[in-house]
Formats: sequence, C-alpha cells, structure tokens
Amino acid sequence: MSRLVMKFGGTSVGDVDRIARVARIVAAEVKPGRGLAVVVSAMSGETDRLIQLARAAAGDGANGAVTGAAFDDEYDVVVSAGEQVATGLLALALRRLGLRARSWQNWQMPLRTDGAHAKARVAEIETRAIAASMDAGVIAVAPGFQGVTEANRITTLGRGGSDTSAVALAAALKAERCDIYTDVDGVYTTDPRIVAKARRLDKISYEEMLEMASLGAKVLQTRSVELAFAQRVPVRVLSSFVEPGAPNPGTLVCSEDEIVEKQVVSGVAYSRDEAKVTLLGVKDDIGAAADIFGRLADANVNVDMIVQTEARREGRRNIVFTCPDRDATRAADIVEGAKLGVDEVHVRRDVAKVSVIGIGMRSQVGVARTMFAALAQKGVNIEAIATSEIKISVLIDAAYTELAVRALHTAYGLDAA
Amino acid sequence: MSRLVMKFGGTSVGDVDRIARVARIVAAEVKPGRGLAVVVSAMSGETDRLIQLARAAAGDGANGAVTGAAFDDEYDVVVSAGEQVATGLLALALRRLGLRARSWQNWQMPLRTDGAHAKARVAEIETRAIAASMDAGVIAVAPGFQGVTEANRITTLGRGGSDTSAVALAAALKAERCDIYTDVDGVYTTDPRIVAKARRLDKISYEEMLEMASLGAKVLQTRSVELAFAQRVPVRVLSSFVEPGAPNPGTLVCSEDEIVEKQVVSGVAYSRDEAKVTLLGVKDDIGAAADIFGRLADANVNVDMIVQTEARREGRRNIVFTCPDRDATRAADIVEGAKLGVDEVHVRRDVAKVSVIGIGMRSQVGVARTMFAALAQKGVNIEAIATSEIKISVLIDAAYTELAVRALHTAYGLDAA
Repeated sequence: MSRLVMKFGGTSVGDVDRIARVARIVAAEVKPGRGLAVVVSAMSGETDRLIQLARAAAGDGANGAVTGAAFDDEYDVVVSAGEQVATGLLALALRRLGLRARSWQNWQMPLRTDGAHAKARVAEIETRAIAASMDAGVIAVAPGFQGVTEANRITTLGRGGSDTSAVALAAALKAERCDIYTDVDGVYTTDPRIVAKARRLDKISYEEMLEMASLGAKVLQTRSVELAFAQRVPVRVLSSFVEPGAPNPGTLVCSEDEIVEKQVVSGVAYSRDEAKVTLLGVKDDIGAAADIFGRLADANVNVDMIVQTEARREGRRNIVFTCPDRDATRAADIVEGAKLGVDEVHVRRDVAKVSVIGIGMRSQVGVARTMFAALAQKGVNIEAIATSEIKISVLIDAAYTELAVRALHTAYGLDAA
Repeated sequence: MSRLVMKFGGTSVGDVDRIARVARIVAAEVKPGRGLAVVVSAMSGETDRLIQLARAAAGDGANGAVTGAAFDDEYDVVVSAGEQVATGLLALALRRLGLRARSWQNWQMPLRTDGAHAKARVAEIETRAIAASMDAGVIAVAPGFQGVTEANRITTLGRGGSDTSAVALAAALKAERCDIYTDVDGVYTTDPRIVAKARRLDKISYEEMLEMASLGAKVLQTRSVELAFAQRVPVRVLSSFVEPGAPNPGTLVCSEDEIVEKQVVSGVAYSRDEAKVTLLGVKDDIGAAADIFGRLADANVNVDMIVQTEARREGRRNIVFTCPDRDATRAADIVEGAKLGVDEVHVRRDVAKVSVIGIGMRSQVGVARTMFAALAQKGVNIEAIATSEIKISVLIDAAYTELAVRALHTAYGLDAA
C-alpha cells in the first residue's frame, strides 16, 4: 500500500467549478493499492472575510479592543471554519465523480498542535483512523492550516500554514510524496517575469529550496520546506491549471542524493524587501555588536547580512546590516535610542539582494569570481556580500535588480536553449 | 449555583453590530452565583449561502448529482461552519465588554446526536466540562443546530434546530430557564397583524404552546417545545430588539401548574397552508380508511382533520381530510392511483384552519358553542371540525380567515382593554 498526499491552495478551490476541477485532478491520481489524502485551504477570499469579522467583533483597534492571547483562541475558531467548508465541498465533488471520499476535520484524526494560537506548530498526528480509511479506498479530505490542542481547542498554523499541514500529514502517513498544486508549474531557475529564458527545474534539493524560498522565490512556504527536509518527505510543486490527467511534471524537492547531476548554481533569487542600515563609529567595546543585535532581536527585527569595517576614528568601527524594509526605521530608532555611542545611523531603502544558489558550490571553486565578474561587467556596484555553503548574496542598488538577475542567469549557463 | 441558557437566532447575530448588542444583552444577565450559556445560530444568510455551495458541489439536481445519505454527512460539515463562526465572534464581543467567555463547539462538550445526518436528534450532552467552566464564571458560547455522532462525525438537527439545541442544553445543565430571544417580544393571543388588540401572554402552558406552534403561530419550533415539555424546562420567549437591560418580560412557556389563573381560551391560531381533499363514494369495507391513510402516511403526507359521512349511494361513504397545501395534489393522486373504488376525488385549496386553544377548556363547557355562534353571526360557514382536549379547530373558506380570527378573539374576551 502506498500513499500520496495532494494539497490545493485557496485559488485552486476558489469557487465550485474550480473545486470540481480539483476533484478531476485527484481522480486522475487514483490507482489500485494507493491511498489518497487531499489537503485544502479555504476558498480564496474566505479567510480574509473571516479575519475581518473576527477583528470587527474584537473591536478592531479601538480603545479596549480584544487583542493578543484573548483574541487568538477565538480568532482560530472563526477562521478555521473556512477550511472546514472547503473539505465538505471537495468530498461532495469527489463523490460526484463516483469516488469514495470523506472529510476529516483535524479534531477527528486528531492532528495535535502546541497551544500557540494563530501561529501553532504541528506536534503530533494520530493517523490510525485516517490511514485505515484511505487504505480501504476512501479519499481523505483534510483542512490545511489548523489543528487542535491537547485540551481540544482549535488552533491555526498562521497564514500559509496549509503547505506545512500537507507535509506534516505526508510525513505522519509515511506517504511516498506530497504534491503541492499551485498557480505556477514548478520551481524556476529564476523569476520568469524578469528572465524570459528561465527554466523549470526537474529537481531541486531541500537546502536549495530553503534558500530560494527565504530569498523571495515564493513558491513554497519556508516552514513546509524545513519540515519536508527534516522528515525527508519528497515534495512536488506542480500546476493546478493543467488539464487533469495531462503531463504536469512540476519540480521535485528532494534529498541531494537523488539529484544525480548537481548544478553549480541551480537558481538566481532576488528580494526587493530590503533596507540597509549603516552604523558609523560604533564604539569598539567587547559586546557592543552583541548588545546592538540583541536589542534588534528582542524587537523582532529580522537582521540578515552583517558587514563590519574599520572606522576612520580610532577605537571605532562601522557596522552595516540589512533587514526587511518595513523594520528599517524601527531598527534605526532602536540603535539610536539605546545610546550606544554610535556616531551616525543611516538607512537606505532603495537596495535589493540578489543571490545565486546551488549545492554544487560546495565542491566547486570560482563561483564567486563568476558572480563578481558578471556584475562588474554590467557596472553593478556591490554594497555588501554574504555567503553560505550553497549561496552567495550581494546587496546592490535596487534599480539594477533585473539587470543583475539576467546577467547572473546567463553567466551560470541557466538560460534555456 | 444557578444556570441560565440564552439563545439568539440568525437575525440577532446578523452582523458585527448586532453581535455586539447580543453581548450587551448577555452582560445584563450576569450575576454572582449564576452560570451562563449562550446558544447562537449562524449569521443570517450564512446558512443559505453554505447550503447553496454544498448543493452546487454535489451537482445540484443535475444527472448524477450526489443526493441522499451520500450528500447529507458532508452537507452537515459545510453548513455547521456557520454556527462555529458565530460562536467565536460572540465570545470575542463578550470579552470586549470585559467578561470572561469562550466558545464550545459541540464536539468539544460533546453534544451527541443520532446518526441521521441533516435531521439528527440530540441523544446525550456531556456537560461536565462546560458546566465547570460556566460555574467558574466563564460564559459558554455554543453553536445551535448541530452535534456529533458516536463516531465523531458532524451532524445538524435540521433547520430551526437551534431552539431545540438550546432547550436540550438547558435540560442537560439543569438550568433554571431557557431564554429564547426572537424578533417578537413574546407569544400573543393571536397574530397582531390581524388583530390590533392582540395581547402578549405572560405565561402559556407547554400543551397550549404546542398547539399554537403546530397551528401556525411560528414563534418557537415545535420540536423545542416538545422537548421542553418532556424535560420540564421553563422557556421564555422574548425580544432581541429591546434595549439591553430594559424591561423585556416576554412570555414564559411553563407547566400548567405554574399558571394560576387558567384562561378558558388562551389564544386563537390560524393556518392558511391547508387543503381539503374530499373522497366521494368510498367503499364501505372494513379497512378501507386504514388502507387510504396508511398509503398517505407511507408517502409522508401529513393528514390533519378527518371527517367521515354517509354517502348518497348505498354501502358507500364520503371521507374529507385536510393536509398541507403542497401535499394536496400528491394526496389526491395517491388515492386515485390506488384503485380503491372511490367514485370521485376533489381538492379544494382556498381553505384555512382556525383554532381556539386553552387548557381551561378541560373544565369548562360551552366553549364550542361560543365558537360556532361567533362564526355563524359573521356568516362564516364551517366545512369541518376537529377537537382535542385543549383545542377546537374549524376549516373555513380562506377568504374569511381574518374575519373569523377577529370574531373569535373578541368572543373569548381576549381583546386588550
């Protein structure tokens, strides 16, 4: 008996016609000896509608509005209703095709999470009942994005948690694979809107996908890739808009071992949601950097690249870091407000981060040289550099983003023939 | 420790402002030593929207559409989401007033029903957890209209089941009372749209209310009154539109013993959803009537009044019965198709049933005489008569409905001063 988990997002189940289409896609995967589970999001727009209702009932920012923990548990009750509706509708659509199917709410399995309402994490999935039903040929339709606590209260995993639900269910069911249907037909070497010659990758490793996802190639939610990596669940990203039954290879996110011909660079990612914060003349005390970044972490500012240089003034140095654009002003205020003896703080917002990613880098030299040469040739100035084992990122003037991405895509031989 | 159950219908929670108002009504009932539970329906319009989605997903009457038992279990999953949303929103609105509150889905108590999806009946309510929470001062907000089976699948009680849920919960919690908030401020001696001098009753017995409800005074759902009667739960019907905290006595539906001054006639009810079926020349065999009414019962035709007279032809008789208007043609077809040797079948649709109801009738003579005299005086012809211990009904030409109701309301001294 093999098992397959399929996941469809809110756009794929946006109305009853699309739900019928999803049912046909699922039907094409039915085969003897295979148990099927389908994880669905709420119909598109529904989650937003429910969030607005919950906020309005809670007072919506007015004086005395219900917020924080007093808001989150009932918010979860309200919002999770959206997925429940979608599971029932898809079960009916599958039955209409003559298939056996039933919905499984997460409290029915149960799928347990911790008690962090509105941002819960999957703790444990009891699969005995759902697996027995699947193995008996009944397609299981489960809601993404939610679970129940030990005390049987409803939780949600935070927005985008449906991918994570699907991967967690696939892991618990020891499924052969988790197929995630999206509005793109796979993972590309870079954003096809910028580079017309971008190619769909047949396979990509978990590590590469993690770098791609967190760097702004928003195909799969980062948490779901982390979980798939940890649990070694092969995840396939494919299109929910291809005719049911038609070729739809997508991209398989899998272990490095399964990728025979490793590319030096598999993809080029970029992010414009960056700001560069420059601290001039930081006192050269032991612990000064720890103090600064500790305060930023306490304030939930997600700091990325960090570069430190000597300052002109004796006993001082300069620190440059990047953070998401929305956090930049706050980050600067924190550093200035902390009276750390920093001479000047500058924020620059018109910057972008461009990265090349590839597991082949580990065993290959000259990857950085190719990058710098390609950028230099186009006259792109590099403001900061950060590297990991399988990635090199550079911070550049945002105006040069497309130019840089195209140049790098060509330089690493990624352009389609 | 006393406990009170309050119930609000879909119109009362139709939008976030109304939910805030319901919260204020609930707040006015908070007092030390009293546990509160609030049962809510889905926001008005929501149940209809969800039913339409479920029907569309199932194929909506098209060839091969999913129907019957294959439809009902997932229909329940879809439709029950509406109440779940309402419970979360009301819990938030109560917290906004500084009160402690939480939602209780029926699977969390649990509230068990039988397995008759889409028309389930409450079997058992485990109240330990919810009662402990209420007694600790946390207002419980529960969804009406639904429950879970032994196998933990979601059921719904059928439309209007929210009143029944509330009464069942009140019975299980041994509540002092179940307050049902509606769009009217109580039970009236008759329809105030017909008789301007109709009076709100302070109290009415279960038996009278049952006759009122089933005869067309649609304030409380019949099933909920039956349950309240069986479990001896006092039910108060009152307005959800009175300013929170303002006088709102409503009508108490209670045991006969609690009504000190019993009226001979408490109210006048009417129903226009009636048709009269006349069978002329039915063979005078033993079992002929049993055969006819057995077939009608098998076809779910709800036969009400039955009158039998001698026919002109020897060895034959005439039978007249009434049934809901929508069933009349089917009823006639069944009788004709059964080849029972009936000479003629006539259906008359423009009829109405007018009834006077009162527990005082039991000990009072002359009640029928007053009725017939009052109708005769207005020239209203009586086509059929049916009586029970606490009710007299007459079938009349529908055109005379208002005239008859007014005449009877005056004749039994029910007009307000």
